[in-house]
Amino acid sequence: MHRWLLPEYIADILPAEARLVEEKRRRVLDLFHSCGYDLVSTPLIEYTESLISEGDHDLDMRTFKLVDQLSGRQLGLRADIAPQVARLDAHLLNKQGAVRLCYAGSVVSTVPSSLLGSREQLQVGAEIYGHGGIEADLEVMTLLLDCLALLGLQQVQLDIGHVGVYRSLVAHFGLDSSQEQALFTAYQSKDVAELADLTKGLPDQAREAFLALASLNGGRDVVGEARAALPNLPGIAKALDDLDRVMVELESIGAQGAIDLVELRAAHYHNGLVFAAYAEGWPNAIAWGGRYDNVGKQFGRARPATGFSFDLRELTRKLALGSAQKAILAPYAPEDPALYQVIRALRTNNEIVVISLPGHEAHVAELNVDRELQKRDGVWQVVPFGQCK
Amino acid sequence: MHRWLLPEYIADILPAEARLVEEKRRRVLDLFHSCGYDLVSTPLIEYTESLISEGDHDLDMRTFKLVDQLSGRQLGLRADIAPQVARLDAHLLNKQGAVRLCYAGSVVSTVPSSLLGSREQLQVGAEIYGHGGIEADLEVMTLLLDCLALLGLQQVQLDIGHVGVYRSLVAHFGLDSSQEQALFTAYQSKDVAELADLTKGLPDQAREAFLALASLNGGRDVVGEARAALPNLPGIAKALDDLDRVMVELESIGAQGAIDLVELRAAHYHNGLVFAAYAEGWPNAIAWGGRYDNVGKQFGRARPATGFSFDLRELTRKLALGSAQKAILAPYAPEDPALYQVIRALRTNNEIVVISLPGHEAHVAELNVDRELQKRDGVWQVVPFGQCK
Repeated sequence: MHRWLLPEYIADILPAEARLVEEKRRRVLDLFHSCGYDLVSTPLIEYTESLISEGDHDLDMRTFKLVDQLSGRQLGLRADIAPQVARLDAHLLNKQGAVRLCYAGSVVSTVPSSLLGSREQLQVGAEIYGHGGIEADLEVMTLLLDCLALLGLQQVQLDIGHVGVYRSLVAHFGLDSSQEQALFTAYQSKDVAELADLTKGLPDQAREAFLALASLNGGRDVVGEARAALPNLPGIAKALDDLDRVMVELESIGAQGAIDLVELRAAHYHNGLVFAAYAEGWPNAIAWGGRYDNVGKQFGRARPATGFSFDLRELTRKLALGSAQKAILAPYAPEDPALYQVIRALRTNNEIVVISLPGHEAHVAELNVDRELQKRDGVWQVVPFGQCK
Repeated sequence: MHRWLLPEYIADILPAEARLVEEKRRRVLDLFHSCGYDLVSTPLIEYTESLISEGDHDLDMRTFKLVDQLSGRQLGLRADIAPQVARLDAHLLNKQGAVRLCYAGSVVSTVPSSLLGSREQLQVGAEIYGHGGIEADLEVMTLLLDCLALLGLQQVQLDIGHVGVYRSLVAHFGLDSSQEQALFTAYQSKDVAELADLTKGLPDQAREAFLALASLNGGRDVVGEARAALPNLPGIAKALDDLDRVMVELESIGAQGAIDLVELRAAHYHNGLVFAAYAEGWPNAIAWGGRYDNVGKQFGRARPATGFSFDLRELTRKLALGSAQKAILAPYAPEDPALYQVIRALRTNNEIVVISLPGHEAHVAELNVDRELQKRDGVWQVVPFGQCK
């Protein structure tokens, strides 16, 4: 094995792309800041009990485990920042009102999210804690759309679901946990044949409802269709009212929305409105979010919560790399303090000034320079690169 | 155990501090950028063979190990970014001339660096590859001083050593590896009694040289003293010439330097000029750097290299937190598109505008607002917070 080989689905980010990620990261964080979202930074490693809520097998499987030699306990390398931020809200910030938080940090997963994905992601997200009303859901959805627009993504559509519909049906028809898991998997893979098979043994009313669910997707009309096709349960009625309101509001700001009642790709902890963003040219969803009101409970304080996140590295990968800023070459002349002052002034003025190291004249083409500093009539001047003195 | 408890020497960064770290991070990266250092981003996890060069027991001990379920091989969670950047230069960038690279990323260590330290650090650094001359050492030292000034650190002093002096003595007097290790540890802890004990069995000339080394620290005069006290070996003569040149240059830019010939706290891979920065009010060094010409060899391409790094989180921890930017409170009125436009314009103009969520009026004191949007004479206006309508 070559020592320079990286593990599968792990990659470096080279200069042009790294600069682009950094620029986009700043713009997104500045947007969050301007909307009153406070930046927080949570640890890369924590006790696994804190990182993974009980029963979240998917997150557990995706989380690398390590041993803490100071305590002998098991640690996890975070695969998701959202539960950490919930811990902060529940335990450290101790506010009674709504709290807006945002973050940008690396997460690592034991397996890639897709064949083209990476196991290391730059997870960027924003969350509102402490407000159970739909106003919070709408605010984070709008913020996500603003983010994606700022990243230059075209033709974004939000697919909106509500975990409450599926959960209400499961509870109403008394499905056990293994039935529920199997159905969930079938919905996720949109496997209609499997769905028909799985629902064979159920009473007619249940079977019809679960089969109807798979085809309930489209525009605002879906709300009416769902009201007709699904049993009139309180959890379903509330969910459909919320979906209707969201569709109206998205329309009013000129955004594209679509209802998908089996949009269940949400994380284990979601329990209300959930959404996924799709953009032109991207086969899979590019951002996810939703409501997860109970996630703080394990930390001693259950508060309503909703938010979203996306992988900024992945989103940046497809953006055109702008041409890199051209630099000014300066000669190596430490004995000349005037030159050093000129260089400093140029750098403060957003110019890149690279000092030529002795003996590297032959490799100057590797530097991205288009101008150079030359002394003319005793004064240092910036002139086009390669001009005769 | 409470689920919200963090492992020892692991901490969250809460909003005020997170914002400060973010601001400082941007300023430092912008400085690097203006000097022609290209930003790169390396993975959090790699095969341990790539992360840790052979024989670097210290880095090995500090590196968390995990198992890659895709390959069955052992991975490490990086404890140092510098060797990764060397891999990039050696293998991916493939330039012949000097290459300037910089980075800012999290590293994690199995043990804290000190009783007050953290196991997670935000390592920020800059490196020059491909230039063996002292000009590169001087450039990175100057850049480090500029960085620390920009971070607001007062009265910075660079302690400068040269690994070549100690290594030349060890080679010349034929010390074996266990003797060398014991001496190295004694120098590191400045343990003079132990040093006297360890050198007892050595020939007089060797003993005198190793004892002299421990007291060779101070201003530029030390170079002359060292020439008199140490054997005239080529490696030592070259090292002393370099140290002399550095002291002259630091003086010429008004920087404080001090020679310390047992400044060996450098990483295992250092092999030339090394330096550590100290600042007023800080008991320990706040930044480290030096030359490590062979680090790329294991990746198939040995190039000269020098650079520095520091923990930006640690450096920011002691800086005064500026008072947080005050926000403007906006009412919740989705039916009013004019309000949304005003909010958007204010946010673009670097203002923080927080939308009041229904029912949270009682908790407004938790928000850091000093102004609010009110509609007066049909126009949305920013007025001092709490004024009667």
